[in-house]
Amino acid sequence: MKKYQFQIELQVRDYECDMQGHVNNAVYLNYLEHARHEFLKTMGLNFSDLVRRGISLVIIRNEIDYKRSLVSGDRFMVGVILQKISPLRYCFVQDIYLLPEKKLVLKGRVTGTGVNSKGRPELPAEVSTALDGLG
Amino acid sequence: MKKYQFQIELQVRDYECDMQGHVNNAVYLNYLEHARHEFLKTMGLNFSDLVRRGISLVIIRNEIDYKRSLVSGDRFMVGVILQKISPLRYCFVQDIYLLPEKKLVLKGRVTGTGVNSKGRPELPAEVSTALDGLG
Amino acid sequence: MKKYQFQIELQVRDYECDMQGHVNNAVYLNYLEHARHEFLKTMGLNFSDLVRRGISLVIIRNEIDYKRSLVSGDRFMVGVILQKISPLRYCFVQDIYLLPEKKLVLKGRVTGTGVNSKGRPELPAEVSTALDGLG
Amino acid sequence: MKKYQFQIELQVRDYECDMQGHVNNAVYLNYLEHARHEFLKTMGLNFSDLVRRGISLVIIRNEIDYKRSLVSGDRFMVGVILQKISPLRYCFVQDIYLLPEKKLVLKGRVTGTGVNSKGRPELPAEVSTALDGLG
Repeated sequence: MKKYQFQIELQVRDYECDMQGHVNNAVYLNYLEHARHEFLKTMGLNFSDLVRRGISLVIIRNEIDYKRSLVSGDRFMVGVILQKISPLRYCFVQDIYLLPEKKLVLKGRVTGTGVNSKGRPELPAEVSTALDGLG
Repeated sequence: MKKYQFQIELQVRDYECDMQGHVNNAVYLNYLEHARHEFLKTMGLNFSDLVRRGISLVIIRNEIDYKRSLVSGDRFMVGVILQKISPLRYCFVQDIYLLPEKKLVLKGRVTGTGVNSKGRPELPAEVSTALDGLG
Repeated sequence: MKKYQFQIELQVRDYECDMQGHVNNAVYLNYLEHARHEFLKTMGLNFSDLVRRGISLVIIRNEIDYKRSLVSGDRFMVGVILQKISPLRYCFVQDIYLLPEKKLVLKGRVTGTGVNSKGRPELPAEVSTALDGLG
Repeated sequence: MKKYQFQIELQVRDYECDMQGHVNNAVYLNYLEHARHEFLKTMGLNFSDLVRRGISLVIIRNEIDYKRSLVSGDRFMVGVILQKISPLRYCFVQDIYLLPEKKLVLKGRVTGTGVNSKGRPELPAEVSTALDGLG
């Protein structure tokens, strides 16, 4: 297991499972988003405050390898590492492990950037400064 | 625009948009799944029938590039091309375009396989035969 | 079948089904919301435009009787009738029917109102005028 | 606040909020379902195990009064009381409170029953015995 900058523990809820009885492939992106937003809070960035102030952080790429399925009631951990990949782009390396065994469930690389009110890439200084503390 | 084997036209619903007013990044995976399952029907494969019969088709990789956001009411098209990449693995090349302008919204590569009741990779002959007709 | 002021036809998507293989009970509220918002458009009210302009239409009560389940691929119709129940409150009578048989799936009564920026009940004149045309 | 038989504490996740910045009205049904299923576990009933064994517990009525909205990051408590209303029908009285203030967010009454493989109302003895311990 990598050394993560942030970890969050969650549990599968029944409504997140589809007709196969597994967590649906789209729902894992919800888990990853929630882990990122909680991680951002530890850097002083509150996603919903940013939205209210017109600052849009957006995902430009999701690269997800599914290794095993989560099912009803499974406890799992999402680990996050932030990597700066260009002045405007940051990659969240995010992996999910089944608990308590720590079996790998999913490996993800989620790339995000900022967009200004005209839809052009732009990251306000307060955001990049906060991210650069860790990225 | 590529020449797709299958196309489906859909429209954004308000509940699919998040606090940024855009379709949430996870919801696009719902759109892609729906397009794939409709595509499978044209090959004689009904996903829910397969589930009932114990045949699990699962996603092992999602690779998604988000090019522009969809918002409330947007009409869009999902195009699909099937590529066989190994005896047990198939890749769905899936792109989304905003209509009527046909502006690129998202480029996706979704890799799937089959899993038997023991969780091992296996594709029943009826499935691989159907997919090979196009893949 | 009642005489509805608005009808919309939709189809169940596989990701809307839960581990029982049925549409999850919460998802029907998505269907009802989508039908209401499409209905509002026919009265000249665009929900997302209203949100952008700070006008919040909110649900204060949902009363839903589930009569039969929808499953993968089912086509269904949502019928809507608008009833004014007080100067600030409107009730959307919304029923869902399985197609093509028109078997009753769900009977709903959804009560909504408007809320101003201070969180107090208030409906801008343009909204109540539009709704009163039908309600 | 009523005296609840079961309580669970949860927190709003950003992806559960819609374009109004509030938790979408359908998402509260997810919260209520999750609370019910956790409550059922305390009675020895595991919903997903029941599904696997062909026992379907279904919702036949949702009656929800929304009192105030939850927003990003809000912590809340779901309280549950079980009431038997007929040999085959049980009502879950479920209320949601914003924490830490314990302000009422939602009052719900969710009625459920069992359905056998032919779609007829039926509750296996093991289920009604477990529910009757509390209901």
